[in-house]
Amino acid sequence: MDVLILGAAGMVGRKLAERLAQEGRIGERSLSRLVLHDVVAPTPPANAPFPVVTAVSDFSSPGEIEKLVAGRPDPIFHLAAIVSGEAEADFEKGYRINLDGTRALFEAIRVIGDGYCPRVVFTSSIAVFGAPFPEAIGDEFFLTPLTSYGTQKAIGELLLADYTRRGFLDGVGIRLPTICVRPGKPNKAASGFFSGIIREPLNGEEAILPVPEDVRHTHASPRSAVNFLLHAASLDGNLLGPRRSLTMPGVSVTVAEQIEALRRIAGDKVAALIRREPDPVVMRIVEGWPRRFDAQRAKRLGFKAEESFDEIIRIHIEDEFRGEIVS
Amino acid sequence: MDVLILGAAGMVGRKLAERLAQEGRIGERSLSRLVLHDVVAPTPPANAPFPVVTAVSDFSSPGEIEKLVAGRPDPIFHLAAIVSGEAEADFEKGYRINLDGTRALFEAIRVIGDGYCPRVVFTSSIAVFGAPFPEAIGDEFFLTPLTSYGTQKAIGELLLADYTRRGFLDGVGIRLPTICVRPGKPNKAASGFFSGIIREPLNGEEAILPVPEDVRHTHASPRSAVNFLLHAASLDGNLLGPRRSLTMPGVSVTVAEQIEALRRIAGDKVAALIRREPDPVVMRIVEGWPRRFDAQRAKRLGFKAEESFDEIIRIHIEDEFRGEIVS
Repeated sequence: MDVLILGAAGMVGRKLAERLAQEGRIGERSLSRLVLHDVVAPTPPANAPFPVVTAVSDFSSPGEIEKLVAGRPDPIFHLAAIVSGEAEADFEKGYRINLDGTRALFEAIRVIGDGYCPRVVFTSSIAVFGAPFPEAIGDEFFLTPLTSYGTQKAIGELLLADYTRRGFLDGVGIRLPTICVRPGKPNKAASGFFSGIIREPLNGEEAILPVPEDVRHTHASPRSAVNFLLHAASLDGNLLGPRRSLTMPGVSVTVAEQIEALRRIAGDKVAALIRREPDPVVMRIVEGWPRRFDAQRAKRLGFKAEESFDEIIRIHIEDEFRGEIVS
Repeated sequence: MDVLILGAAGMVGRKLAERLAQEGRIGERSLSRLVLHDVVAPTPPANAPFPVVTAVSDFSSPGEIEKLVAGRPDPIFHLAAIVSGEAEADFEKGYRINLDGTRALFEAIRVIGDGYCPRVVFTSSIAVFGAPFPEAIGDEFFLTPLTSYGTQKAIGELLLADYTRRGFLDGVGIRLPTICVRPGKPNKAASGFFSGIIREPLNGEEAILPVPEDVRHTHASPRSAVNFLLHAASLDGNLLGPRRSLTMPGVSVTVAEQIEALRRIAGDKVAALIRREPDPVVMRIVEGWPRRFDAQRAKRLGFKAEESFDEIIRIHIEDEFRGEIVS
C-alpha cells in the first residue's frame, strides 16, 4: 500500500506519519511506501519500516498534483490547506489552494481512471458551520460558513461527494473539532488560547485567557485526530452512502471546566498561571463558533474521541512530556 | 438601470425579458438598457421602452464574461446553466459551465471593484437536496445533492454567499421548485410529465403519465418564477443576512390532485387524455426528489407562489392560450 499525505509538514500530518511509521499498517494492510508532501519540507518519521519519500512543491501549480498521484497511491490523506486567517486575508490564495488545489487533486485522480479509485480522506472543518446554530449541531444541520476558509471546505465536501458518487474516487470527509492541546509554540489562530491555557502553564509559563470562562467549545486531542484519519482510511465506504462528510466527536467543555481539569491534574500553582485579559476581538470571533455537536453518525461508524477534558490533558502530557511534568 | 440576463434564451429568461419590457422597471427603478445573453440567440421582447442588446457566446470562454460585466450592469440575472441530465451525461461540460462559468462571473465582478457591487440573482434548484429527507424540507436542512448539477448549484450558492459576505457583490440565490406548466414542446427531462399531463390534454393531445398518482411534488408557474426573480432583484439584502439562498414557495400536490384540478377546469374529456404507462426508470428518479418544502423564510421575505394547482392551470391558460381553451 502506497500512502500519500498532502500537508505532511503540519502538526497533524507529522503525527500521522509518525504513527504510520510505528504501526507499519492501516487496518489489515501494510504500507509499502509513504510519500510526504508539503509546500515546506516535511520531516520524515524515524525508524519507518518502509521507504519514506518527501516531496516539496505548490500542489496547486500546473502538473504538480499529477506527479504525486501518478504512482496511484491509496489511501491519500488530503490535509493541505491555507488556514482560516490567511484565507480571509488573502482571498485569491485561499481559493487557489483550498478550492483549486483540492479540485486539481480530484481531477488528477479522475483522469487516471482505469480502475484507480483511491480512498481520499479529506480534512474538512467545523468552519463549514456558521452562526446562528442550535445549542447542539446535528448531523443534518446545513452548511453556512461565515469565512472564505469554511466556504472552501464546504465546497471540498460537495466535490468529494460528487466525485465519489460518480465512481472517480472513494472519499471520506472528516470535520475536525478544535485540536487541543496543540504542542509547540503559540500560533496566531483566534482559537489558540484553548491550547495555550493548558500548554503554557504545564511548561511553567503564563498563559493569557482572552474570553470569559463560560465560553463553551468542542475539543479532541491530536492523537484523536490521527485516530480519526486512520479510521476514515479503512472505513467501509458502503456504510456512508452518498453523504461522505462527517462531523467528528469531541469533548464539549467550558473554559472553566478546562481550567478545573488542569487544576485536578497539575495543581493550583499551575492553574494560577492563567491570566484573564479579555480581548473583545477574540470574544467576537469566538461567539460565531459552534459550541457543541451531536456527532451521532460518526460515533455509530466507530469514530472515537476522548471522554473528558482530563483525558485530553493526560494525552498531551503522555505525548509531549513522555508522561512527566514538573509541577 | 442596466440589466443583464445570462441564460436569456431559456423559457424563464424569455418570460423575464418580456415582463421587463412590459413594465419598464424593477421596483422603483426604470430600466435604461437590457442585455440578453445566451449561447444561442435570445429573442428580444417586443415593444420594449428601452434599448435591448442581444449577445451570443459561451460565457465560460476566457474574456467573454468580462465583456458582459464591463458596462457594470445591476442587477444581473444569472439563469445560465447546463441542465441536470446533460450535466450528468457530460461531467466536464457541467462543471465548466455551471461551476467555472458561475465563478468566472463572480470573479469578473470582483475584479472590477471600485464600488461596483451589483445585485446578482442566481437561480439555484431544489436539486441541491438529496434523499433521504424529512416529509417537509425546512430552511435549515442541509444540502446533499445526488447529481452533479445539484452539486454545482450548491457550490454556486456557497460562492454567492462568500462573495456577498466579502462585499464583492450582493447576491440572492433562489431555489426554484419544478416550473409547471412549462409551455412548448415536451422535453426529455424526467420531470417533464408534470407539465405534460396538463399541457398536452389542454391541446387536445394524449399525455403519458409514467408514475403512480400518489407521487407528490412541489410546483410553481412560470409567472411565479418571474415574480421570484423580480422580487429577488429588488429585495433589501440586509433582511437576508449571510444566508443568501432561499427555497422558493410552491404548491405541493399529488399527481391525482393535479389531474382533479385539470378535470375541474377543463372537464372529463380533457382529463381522459392522460394515459397511465408506468416507467420504472422515471419512477426511480422521481423517488429521489423532494416532495414538499416548508419555505418559511422566503414567504416571510415576501416571495409568493400560487395557492392551488387550479391557479397554476388557470395561469397557463391565461398566458399561453390568451385565456381561451377548446374543450
